[in-house]
Amino acid sequence: MPVFSPSVETLVTELSKMPGIGRKSAQRIAFYLLKISKEEALSLAEAITDVKEKVSFCSVCFNMAETDPCHICADAARDHTVVCVVEEPKDLLALERPGTFKGVYHVLGGRIAPLDGLDPEKLTIRALLERAKSGEVQEVILALSATAEGDGTALCVADRLKEAAVRVTRLARGLPTGASLDYANPGMLADALRGRQDVG
Amino acid sequence: MPVFSPSVETLVTELSKMPGIGRKSAQRIAFYLLKISKEEALSLAEAITDVKEKVSFCSVCFNMAETDPCHICADAARDHTVVCVVEEPKDLLALERPGTFKGVYHVLGGRIAPLDGLDPEKLTIRALLERAKSGEVQEVILALSATAEGDGTALCVADRLKEAAVRVTRLARGLPTGASLDYANPGMLADALRGRQDVG
Repeated sequence: MPVFSPSVETLVTELSKMPGIGRKSAQRIAFYLLKISKEEALSLAEAITDVKEKVSFCSVCFNMAETDPCHICADAARDHTVVCVVEEPKDLLALERPGTFKGVYHVLGGRIAPLDGLDPEKLTIRALLERAKSGEVQEVILALSATAEGDGTALCVADRLKEAAVRVTRLARGLPTGASLDYANPGMLADALRGRQDVG
Repeated sequence: MPVFSPSVETLVTELSKMPGIGRKSAQRIAFYLLKISKEEALSLAEAITDVKEKVSFCSVCFNMAETDPCHICADAARDHTVVCVVEEPKDLLALERPGTFKGVYHVLGGRIAPLDGLDPEKLTIRALLERAKSGEVQEVILALSATAEGDGTALCVADRLKEAAVRVTRLARGLPTGASLDYANPGMLADALRGRQDVG
């Protein structure tokens, strides 16, 4: 016989499916949910239901949005000739800080990682190619992770984009702003040397 | 303008209220919930709603249960003369492993921690005293944390229980089973020496 009621067991099982949440954390969260008022707990349940009902992917850029196209794709004030390719919606969040980027986006939905079952066909590369071929786009900026997998994905995407007559660029590599040289790792320094810029 | 839709923002805010979940983790969980199928996400929302509707506190031992009294308090095969006092329902979980304890429980709802706003009146000490006075209970085992706060709570509870004619005990302190002496800390060794037992 379980010590707790079946509904608590079910809740723990459901919670432990969330990323970064093990069984112990799930238990702690379940006890927290049992402790707080009914309204508070239900507002979480409602937020989940709400999000699944209202939010879906923008059919243009694959960002998550409540409208289709999303408010970024629908914004005439933005530069629709420059498309910035990111892996996940959360990367877009970083670029949307004020004054960073005024173009539009394309969310790949991950990076190519065959070991995790993420092959190129599961990403939105095909849709990106269609967009690039449409004539409106002049430049595609690959803003992917500065890792082996990110670089691999960038190479693959750049290769596919050869079919379209667009300029393909990637984010600069170098010293992070504010870094002192003695903390820079060899890869960072090699990138910084390779991309050195003329002064004055 | 928010980058994500208001409903995603609401979800992140709700998720970050959970213990151990910061804003970044909440974002990651929100994106996970957006990615999975609608059924999967709704089954989590349902589990939360379900738990708040079905589960409440047992009026005898204050454990969480779907019935009142809970299945432990209602179990005639258990020894109702021995009450084991624990801080939280999850401590009860540890004691309910097969063959550990066959008495009944009393959940305090925390330990006395004035700095965290947990004073004795917020715990279920008064109800425990009523139970101890009822005549059925012969022994109260204090199974609280082996920390300063746990010990303080044990002292306070034991003091209150003087009014009732019951034996009050606490869990033994000593070397944890399987430990080697060179890894034991001074407090552990002092407890083990103090509680030394005759051999043979």
